[in-house]
Amino acid sequence: MRQRGTRGLEPALGELLEVWREPVPRTSMDAVRGAADGTLAGFESLEAMLQHYVPEDKLPEVLRVLHGSNMGAAVRQLAIDGVLKAAAVQKGFDLQAFAFGAALEEFRPPRIVKIGLIQNSICQSTDEPFDVQLKAIMAKVGELIDTAGTLGVNVLCLQEAWSMPFAFCTREKRWCQFAEDVEGSSSVALCQELARKWNMVIVSPILERDSVHGGVLWNTAVVVGNKGNVIGKHRKNHIPRVGDFNESTYYMEGDTGHPVFQTAFGKIGINICYGRHHPQNWMAFGLNGAEIVFNPSATVGALSEPMWSIEARNAAIANSYFVGAINRVGTETFPNEFTSGDGKPAHKDFGHFYGSSYVAAPDASRTPSLARNKDGLLVAECDLNLCRQVSDSWGFRMTARYGVYAELLKRYCSPDFKPQVIQDPALGSSTST
Amino acid sequence: MRQRGTRGLEPALGELLEVWREPVPRTSMDAVRGAADGTLAGFESLEAMLQHYVPEDKLPEVLRVLHGSNMGAAVRQLAIDGVLKAAAVQKGFDLQAFAFGAALEEFRPPRIVKIGLIQNSICQSTDEPFDVQLKAIMAKVGELIDTAGTLGVNVLCLQEAWSMPFAFCTREKRWCQFAEDVEGSSSVALCQELARKWNMVIVSPILERDSVHGGVLWNTAVVVGNKGNVIGKHRKNHIPRVGDFNESTYYMEGDTGHPVFQTAFGKIGINICYGRHHPQNWMAFGLNGAEIVFNPSATVGALSEPMWSIEARNAAIANSYFVGAINRVGTETFPNEFTSGDGKPAHKDFGHFYGSSYVAAPDASRTPSLARNKDGLLVAECDLNLCRQVSDSWGFRMTARYGVYAELLKRYCSPDFKPQVIQDPALGSSTST
Repeated sequence: MRQRGTRGLEPALGELLEVWREPVPRTSMDAVRGAADGTLAGFESLEAMLQHYVPEDKLPEVLRVLHGSNMGAAVRQLAIDGVLKAAAVQKGFDLQAFAFGAALEEFRPPRIVKIGLIQNSICQSTDEPFDVQLKAIMAKVGELIDTAGTLGVNVLCLQEAWSMPFAFCTREKRWCQFAEDVEGSSSVALCQELARKWNMVIVSPILERDSVHGGVLWNTAVVVGNKGNVIGKHRKNHIPRVGDFNESTYYMEGDTGHPVFQTAFGKIGINICYGRHHPQNWMAFGLNGAEIVFNPSATVGALSEPMWSIEARNAAIANSYFVGAINRVGTETFPNEFTSGDGKPAHKDFGHFYGSSYVAAPDASRTPSLARNKDGLLVAECDLNLCRQVSDSWGFRMTARYGVYAELLKRYCSPDFKPQVIQDPALGSSTST
Repeated sequence: MRQRGTRGLEPALGELLEVWREPVPRTSMDAVRGAADGTLAGFESLEAMLQHYVPEDKLPEVLRVLHGSNMGAAVRQLAIDGVLKAAAVQKGFDLQAFAFGAALEEFRPPRIVKIGLIQNSICQSTDEPFDVQLKAIMAKVGELIDTAGTLGVNVLCLQEAWSMPFAFCTREKRWCQFAEDVEGSSSVALCQELARKWNMVIVSPILERDSVHGGVLWNTAVVVGNKGNVIGKHRKNHIPRVGDFNESTYYMEGDTGHPVFQTAFGKIGINICYGRHHPQNWMAFGLNGAEIVFNPSATVGALSEPMWSIEARNAAIANSYFVGAINRVGTETFPNEFTSGDGKPAHKDFGHFYGSSYVAAPDASRTPSLARNKDGLLVAECDLNLCRQVSDSWGFRMTARYGVYAELLKRYCSPDFKPQVIQDPALGSSTST
């Protein structure tokens, strides 16, 4: 093995996570409502920047390679009523709508479902009384849900722990007060009311308290049916231990399996946040028959942003279903300082949640992203027939050899697992690699 | 469920795959050597186009979101000797070199390995005698391997079935004559000779004939050690049945498991072509300890190109290893016409293999792509220490809950598998979704 080339930057291991927090000066207003984060300066999204700089005749080819094509063309943009658009501008949220087509079939009519994704910042300073913070978020998100209803959304998903600041970075247990039992939860009640109002399925990811089982907490998505009833819930399967994502000090890995909810508008699953890094988690919702999987998230930083456009799309492709990827937006600053395990001084903020929610389709096409720095609602009309059409075309299920992997994983979980390694016999025992 | 909105384009199911073949006029020369395919017109790659249009002060931010960052910065470009660069220009191949850094550690020195990827078009018309075609490809690829040796590459991988046209689209069995037993293969012998010459591990993906077992064919990657010995081989695990990829009429799913080869320069695995669509295949090489996984491929068309930048990167992220993604380049035209199962008239070409080979790192960063329309060599210096560092930071292995998935897959493979579906009790039995 040859010697390492010289390089200006040779950081120590402890600094690897340094880029999690973007070193951007923030005004006090930024702490309250998602604002510019100093990157993609002057633009709300990568797509907006490309649209600005790449000439009109080259842009379709750039977008074909970057965003794929649906039925041989760019994902179709849907017109939005002028009054709604004006209201969005006035209230400062991003509003976009698209449509994915599918081929016409002989035996099935098209199955058109409008899905909606909402990304939101918090509304009040985190040192306000908790009920003030909660009510302000609920009021704002309620308006966004009403907009989704007006646009005819059938299945809506909110972001992870949407009704509270993402305070787990602090490791302070007083934030547990935001947890609610599903039964009696004010945020779920709001969703039930609006689900009935708009005949809309709403997925409401909350911090759940399970009073029946000792009052422990879970990171949970509650699925509210279009009649306003709670269909069921799913608890986050994979809990991070990375950077400031100290969630494992609040709640454990979910115990609800990989449920798929048969709603009035298709079969849906929910892969909560960090579970998007686990291809097997995505796979499981697919094996249980999901046609749409939502990924309500809360993620920040320079390291995770380049993953954001990869993982949800890969899941949509590999599993032949639609994915709605939703990320929180804004910068949240907390009353007390905390450290990040990166050797840096204590600080009070969790970095910038970069929004950028989007929908990915099984045919490898996707919508543009919502803004990196604004609340937003993204609507995507999907013909769910596309799922089986793509599955029949590409044959990933048929060719997946699940039995091989069932066997491998069983062996892997054994304490005496022996990796399948073929050693170069020409190597002496001296090799260090 | 509401009625489908009107849309200009409503193609029938049979036309879904239409976009596989790019409707681009080709000159006869295109049939011989990869040439412009009419898309990304005037540019060799997406990156080259962005570099041209996006202002210098905005480009780093675009590339950070699109390509990630390594140690907090863009993946470093390595200087290439002027003589080599001039030779590449003269011979018409793309030559690019990059370096991925890692943090310095206390207990391990850096483990710098230079990996190389070669993408090549065929050299002669497909109606030339087979030995003429074979020798011409070997001569050209031999030169590319020599260039890799001059640049100090430690581990090199060639593209899938590199020594022949990708003739499986024709379903004509006479192309089986290109198959060779590993023992006595002229293409493997070339790799052995050059491996010794340059002290380089070379992965040589070929069409293998297994004369010991009835002469059946396999799609196989042969791993040649840096002393010129054959360390072993791996056979393609997942065989496509899509579009013109009629490989399942030539060979079956591989029987070699997911071997990881311990070479003088790190532990490597090979996920051949269509296996990149299967996250479990990638996972298995990771569970067996791979630090670099190559994905030698041959893929064309508008549907697969948007997947190309997603799948290898997702694998690198999810499994905390480096991925070298290699795609064939050029348009191959065959003597006899064939149909594509898409209802279109018979034709003689397989569409454009779009090259675009690249290296993805476990920290979600990646190199730019090689050209879409040229032979090429991409060199990437990697500090393999990055794999464990990222794994320790993100903790994907630790949090993967493999036991849950072992159990699920076992149940799934049972004929009486019952998907975990939670039905909305408010739904009547009349729902059609």
